Amino acid sequence: MKTIDWTGEELILLDQTKLPGEEVYVHCTDWRQVAEAIKMLRVRGAPAIGVAAAYAMVLAAREAIRETVTMDAAMVRLSAFGEALNATRPTAVNLGWALTQIREITDTLSEEPDLDGDSLIDAVEEKAKDIEQEDILLTMKIAAAGESLFPEHKKYRILTHCNTGALATAGIGTALGIIKTLAQKNKIEMVYVDETRPLLQGARLTAFELLEDNIPATLLTDNMAAYVMQQGLIDAVIVGADRITTEGDVANKIGTYGVAVLAKAHGIPFYVAAPFSTFDFTMAKGSDIPIERRAPEEVRTLQGISTAPAGIHVLNPAFDVTPHELISAIVTEEGVLRENYVNSIKTLKKQVGGRRK
Amino acid sequence: MKTIDWTGEELILLDQTKLPGEEVYVHCTDWRQVAEAIKMLRVRGAPAIGVAAAYAMVLAAREAIRETVTMDAAMVRLSAFGEALNATRPTAVNLGWALTQIREITDTLSEEPDLDGDSLIDAVEEKAKDIEQEDILLTMKIAAAGESLFPEHKKYRILTHCNTGALATAGIGTALGIIKTLAQKNKIEMVYVDETRPLLQGARLTAFELLEDNIPATLLTDNMAAYVMQQGLIDAVIVGADRITTEGDVANKIGTYGVAVLAKAHGIPFYVAAPFSTFDFTMAKGSDIPIERRAPEEVRTLQGISTAPAGIHVLNPAFDVTPHELISAIVTEEGVLRENYVNSIKTLKKQVGGRRK
Repeated sequence: MKTIDWTGEELILLDQTKLPGEEVYVHCTDWRQVAEAIKMLRVRGAPAIGVAAAYAMVLAAREAIRETVTMDAAMVRLSAFGEALNATRPTAVNLGWALTQIREITDTLSEEPDLDGDSLIDAVEEKAKDIEQEDILLTMKIAAAGESLFPEHKKYRILTHCNTGALATAGIGTALGIIKTLAQKNKIEMVYVDETRPLLQGARLTAFELLEDNIPATLLTDNMAAYVMQQGLIDAVIVGADRITTEGDVANKIGTYGVAVLAKAHGIPFYVAAPFSTFDFTMAKGSDIPIERRAPEEVRTLQGISTAPAGIHVLNPAFDVTPHELISAIVTEEGVLRENYVNSIKTLKKQVGGRRK
Repeated sequence: MKTIDWTGEELILLDQTKLPGEEVYVHCTDWRQVAEAIKMLRVRGAPAIGVAAAYAMVLAAREAIRETVTMDAAMVRLSAFGEALNATRPTAVNLGWALTQIREITDTLSEEPDLDGDSLIDAVEEKAKDIEQEDILLTMKIAAAGESLFPEHKKYRILTHCNTGALATAGIGTALGIIKTLAQKNKIEMVYVDETRPLLQGARLTAFELLEDNIPATLLTDNMAAYVMQQGLIDAVIVGADRITTEGDVANKIGTYGVAVLAKAHGIPFYVAAPFSTFDFTMAKGSDIPIERRAPEEVRTLQGISTAPAGIHVLNPAFDVTPHELISAIVTEEGVLRENYVNSIKTLKKQVGGRRK
């Protein structure tokens, strides 16, 4: 089972909306199929979306070259395709980050007078592979950095929300990657998994990954998180992130903010794990992050079965924002950030920026 | 549509597990059918369970008289039936309260030397009718008392959890009864309804009742409650209760405690509405309340559809306990109680006890 598989010809995506019942793959030969898969959450998880979008740009580049006569026309078309991919989901910033990486390559190439189509396509493909490889590597680095938060010689009981594992990244995962690494070292007593309504990424995907890896796991409905904290069953919370501002406010799956408030009230550390690409350096306040509103049917039904009266009004924000005051630490591939986040995030930016120049 | 309907021959219960999709009634001519309906949550809500159990005792008395030769034997059998009914659900105290009311009648009658079977049955039936009538009346009194918590000339935005309406009582409801009464006075802007996993009493029942009554309502998944509070959309939370201790700790549907912690963190008043019969004067600490653990399949499935891997371990407490520190007021048919709860509950007991003597 592979979340994202690039064959050189097509992008094969595991359809996560069908898990854990069925193992169905979507074979994408057109970037629009990838866009649809992102929009419909067949592929989801901020890092995985970035990787899928990068490969979608290879398919987009092939189409742009095939359907136009001049390189200029191809570039205009490719740019429009990139915009359309970027619009599929508004909250996660890794999508835009991956597309910007591709864009930088194509912008640079477009200045070469004798550029041919195949070179353009090859360059985009190389960059997409780089993004995937980098994602695999950085999940391992995040896991290594995250381990330092669990220094005691004991088995920990950890609560997590949504899915941040191998299904959400090209690698072992972010928050779940840390948990898996701790489990390998025999430092996990129990992982408590919020089911994560409405789309049940915790119940369907995280529970599935933990079972596959033989890591002790207990599934909860979201409203039981407070209960297990009250009962003293939780040592730490770890979640992922879809966007982090320069002040350290974190957008993540709906429900994350509530878990953070509950963790604070119970004196439980609340950790966020995410790659550098999750930081949005154009934004300071979490309240500025656009929050995707999804269809009311996601709340009113499940797999076509009605769970509420058809006429009832519904609120369905896909994400919420946890203010930095509630976050004990942010784990990145560059190390662990703590308050003051304005400073630690500024330092992180300089480190990474300096190295990449 | 009627939640509980006693025809004199049988007890007709609206099967709430089928709502809102289907309106199905269970015709009970045997107390065991009522016990099954309580256990399976076909009838639910602490006050409604009490009323249903009282009528079940009429069916039980008929059987006990029919199947035995002496009154003593009938009494022994009836007592055993009452025990079995009492064991159907461990957390709500109204069930035990109603059965005790019946028991007091039968104990008194059993001392009469010339007691005949029909008199016993008639007396139990009269008491069951009293319990039902009292429940109808006291929900109206609770609603009237609850209104006093909303004195401003404005429309309120209220969050509620689970179902505490006409489907949970013989009357208009407890927490939802207050909301309905406010709506009649044009003082409701919006009711936010937690769907209340795992069994979705909010989505299926509360949303349904509010739609029927044309009260503005918005359905949320449980993990969105923190988000709407953060957005400043909630003026107050009102919930019901299944058991209240002498210190004011409240057992209620799982998820209630989390909502209470969130309300406190956002400076939102958190109100509990419940009849006198919900108080357990034998218990001081919430931690002593037995918490019903229900089947894991309730969490692993949603409306019968699998939502998680079959092998995943599950925690499924049906209730949690909210400590009195988080409760702004408790609304009863006798008026509004506030801290110090030990004193206000003691006073309540004296009031009611004095009047009933």
